[in-house]
Amino acid sequence: MTDSATLGKTGYDPVTHQPLTWSDRLDDFRSGTDSPSAYLERCLATIAAREPAVKAWVVLNEAGAKTAAAAATKRWRDGKPLSPIDGMPIGVKDLYMTKDMPTQMGSPLYAGRSTGEDSACVQALRLAGAAILGKTVTTELGFSHPGPTTNPFDPACTPGGSSSGSAAAIGAAMVPATLGSQVVGSIIRPAGFCANTAIKPTLGALHRGERQGLSHSHLGVHAGGVDDLWAVSHAIARFTGGDPGCPGLYGPEDAPTATAPRRLIVAETEGWALTDDATLTAFEKLLGQVAASGVAIVRRKGHADLEAFEREITESLVLCRDICGWELRWTLRNLAEKDVTKLSPSMRVRLEMAEAMTQDDYRAALAKRETMRSRFRSVAATADAMITLSSAGPAPLMGDPNAKGEPGITHTTGLPAYNAWTSAIGCPAVTVPMLAIGGMPVGVQIVGRHDDDWRTAGIARWLKETVAPVSG
Amino acid sequence: MTDSATLGKTGYDPVTHQPLTWSDRLDDFRSGTDSPSAYLERCLATIAAREPAVKAWVVLNEAGAKTAAAAATKRWRDGKPLSPIDGMPIGVKDLYMTKDMPTQMGSPLYAGRSTGEDSACVQALRLAGAAILGKTVTTELGFSHPGPTTNPFDPACTPGGSSSGSAAAIGAAMVPATLGSQVVGSIIRPAGFCANTAIKPTLGALHRGERQGLSHSHLGVHAGGVDDLWAVSHAIARFTGGDPGCPGLYGPEDAPTATAPRRLIVAETEGWALTDDATLTAFEKLLGQVAASGVAIVRRKGHADLEAFEREITESLVLCRDICGWELRWTLRNLAEKDVTKLSPSMRVRLEMAEAMTQDDYRAALAKRETMRSRFRSVAATADAMITLSSAGPAPLMGDPNAKGEPGITHTTGLPAYNAWTSAIGCPAVTVPMLAIGGMPVGVQIVGRHDDDWRTAGIARWLKETVAPVSG
Repeated sequence: MTDSATLGKTGYDPVTHQPLTWSDRLDDFRSGTDSPSAYLERCLATIAAREPAVKAWVVLNEAGAKTAAAAATKRWRDGKPLSPIDGMPIGVKDLYMTKDMPTQMGSPLYAGRSTGEDSACVQALRLAGAAILGKTVTTELGFSHPGPTTNPFDPACTPGGSSSGSAAAIGAAMVPATLGSQVVGSIIRPAGFCANTAIKPTLGALHRGERQGLSHSHLGVHAGGVDDLWAVSHAIARFTGGDPGCPGLYGPEDAPTATAPRRLIVAETEGWALTDDATLTAFEKLLGQVAASGVAIVRRKGHADLEAFEREITESLVLCRDICGWELRWTLRNLAEKDVTKLSPSMRVRLEMAEAMTQDDYRAALAKRETMRSRFRSVAATADAMITLSSAGPAPLMGDPNAKGEPGITHTTGLPAYNAWTSAIGCPAVTVPMLAIGGMPVGVQIVGRHDDDWRTAGIARWLKETVAPVSG
Repeated sequence: MTDSATLGKTGYDPVTHQPLTWSDRLDDFRSGTDSPSAYLERCLATIAAREPAVKAWVVLNEAGAKTAAAAATKRWRDGKPLSPIDGMPIGVKDLYMTKDMPTQMGSPLYAGRSTGEDSACVQALRLAGAAILGKTVTTELGFSHPGPTTNPFDPACTPGGSSSGSAAAIGAAMVPATLGSQVVGSIIRPAGFCANTAIKPTLGALHRGERQGLSHSHLGVHAGGVDDLWAVSHAIARFTGGDPGCPGLYGPEDAPTATAPRRLIVAETEGWALTDDATLTAFEKLLGQVAASGVAIVRRKGHADLEAFEREITESLVLCRDICGWELRWTLRNLAEKDVTKLSPSMRVRLEMAEAMTQDDYRAALAKRETMRSRFRSVAATADAMITLSSAGPAPLMGDPNAKGEPGITHTTGLPAYNAWTSAIGCPAVTVPMLAIGGMPVGVQIVGRHDDDWRTAGIARWLKETVAPVSG
């Protein structure tokens, strides 16, 4: 076991931790007392200091980002910014295409691959004026096999995955926002491990580009706070919209203000039984504070509809494993044919499991997902939102051989048991850093109804700004 | 105007025309009196003879196809074919990826582009043993700007588009089956112009691979008859299934037998008023024969529900133009940035129109599409299927400057007014060659309810095998 101390563990203090933010700088950009160019230089300085340990980035395009920031600097001073994120330095998960940087997807089979095109989300950010600073580390093809990124609060621990670099870059205050994606637990879980504020929006609300081979994958945003999270999300919606066939993100350009819920449902999910006592105790204390503030808290016991919903989602990890495996198998066959030794052992297991499925197995999984969605709608309609943990505890150690993941698959970036159900259901989830367990961050997520992203983010903001964080 | 006679117009005789078929050879493959290798040689001979005028192919991989056919030949003789299409020579529309051939999408911006991977449908066909013979010409990105392909019955005429090469290769009896795709009218219309039997299946029933940027694009099959059409469709469904999130094609491996409908609804669509008199007269005569065979024919007049449906679909061309434009615009922006002069004028118009749309315009278009789907379900439930023309007459002349297409867009491959509504609705459509107008083929399509592909093909087969073709 590596000694954390020698690697420079800083730990996480929820009271003193200051995330990097952008939206609070706009007046200074207009007046000239600050500028996107100066902001970028500060980001680059942080990256220079922290990147050797954190390893969040696959590649940087400093020159391109500087050019974009300089153009934005002029536009702000001329009073003509392209959008509220004009000049914002942003990191892009390396599953998305960038015309000026390779897109390698965390796999040696895509080493050096250059597409020469931007994914829709990246194109939208450029049209909004953003400075696309670099590509962030993803696990292999967005699944289990980890990259080199470490947790910014303890380099002995995982940052989570698959949006490893995007979560770590925010945790280390390297940039104000990054793009992530989630098909099981790839945004909310790492965001929680790294003290991000992050959104997995309604399924289809933000355009995934051509990477639509998975029927419930989501593009989302990691940031230091709700203002920036919303500004980036809205810019993507404004300049390219949602997935083909989807109405796109609903909500105004203005970020949601903190909005107290009247009634919150506690979702235990299949993660509850797998969560350590310290985390559960801290979460219960947090719920007590929420209740004390006047919010009605609905618990599982004695609520038949909620109990039925909880039973319905108890095998979400298996469901996501099977749906994703089936949908990914033709891609994996293509890659295996090129060089099967360049697929990780866990990815080979995924392919084997998928090849053992039948069309009827897949249809049954889709039907189960529909039932989950229906039961969710039924229960969610009785409250303002749901509240639950973002992970089953703080980030585990890097490469922990006893780590748990989807059944049958080695998964060392933390258990996505609190996330798989929201991915399958496609409802919006927003995580905020509310707990510190053993000096490491744990997120709490607010889960809203479909297309209720704006209000869901407003409730999450209320939680963060009104309720005291809990250490345990 | 080019003189058709000098170019070798053969014309089309619906009584004597013999399409190339495969499924009737299987006993001979087993016994050794014929073989996939010998079959392929006959295909190559036809291609050598017809390709100089027809220009259906972008590239051929003769060596690869011969290797596949030889392996299939052995398997048939050993009594162990991989599927009913083991060894079948197949052409693939050049929008789909092939690991052994470039994928150029009918655009100079993709000239020489090699992906090194198979699209899901191509991979499925290889797993079924098929001999992937080559890539067939598509219009630019599957839209309006034509390639060099000519109509196999008159080289002065268009083969239709966007599946130009796939339709022409079947019409010229070069191969028994090809893959096409349709997002407006790109399978059924060219198939009708070239005397194919073809299916645009239920939306999502056959896997589109990564090319899912358009929310109602369909992968389909062109063939010489229903047996081959179904064998290829079923093989794709069996080896990779449907689109992510879709249940995939329903129906057994056995092709549907000819099944007489009891009741057919005539769909006039927005094409009716744009159709020449000779074609309408011939179609009415055909309907008379169908009625005489004992089928109840439901016409628009006096049926309020059908009238409401017809009114709902009268602007399907505009709807498809707008939905596709919005969904395609981020891709077009990428391409325009590389070299806008390499986009055709009609494609530049599409991009301009799309950039003028708002998110609300797109949402309104999606809502209208949903209403069309709902009205279709309501009406379609009252009969076995609908029957209508596959095009507004025979194939127009190549490059006709007066050609009609989606409003505002130059479109010389024939008007897709009989097709846009089925694309938007996502219901299955099967075209069979039933009419000859001025010595050129015109198709008639049977349109079924969602997931009713097998029965729809059975009704189309009944039409072809039971009702006499009409010349006009």
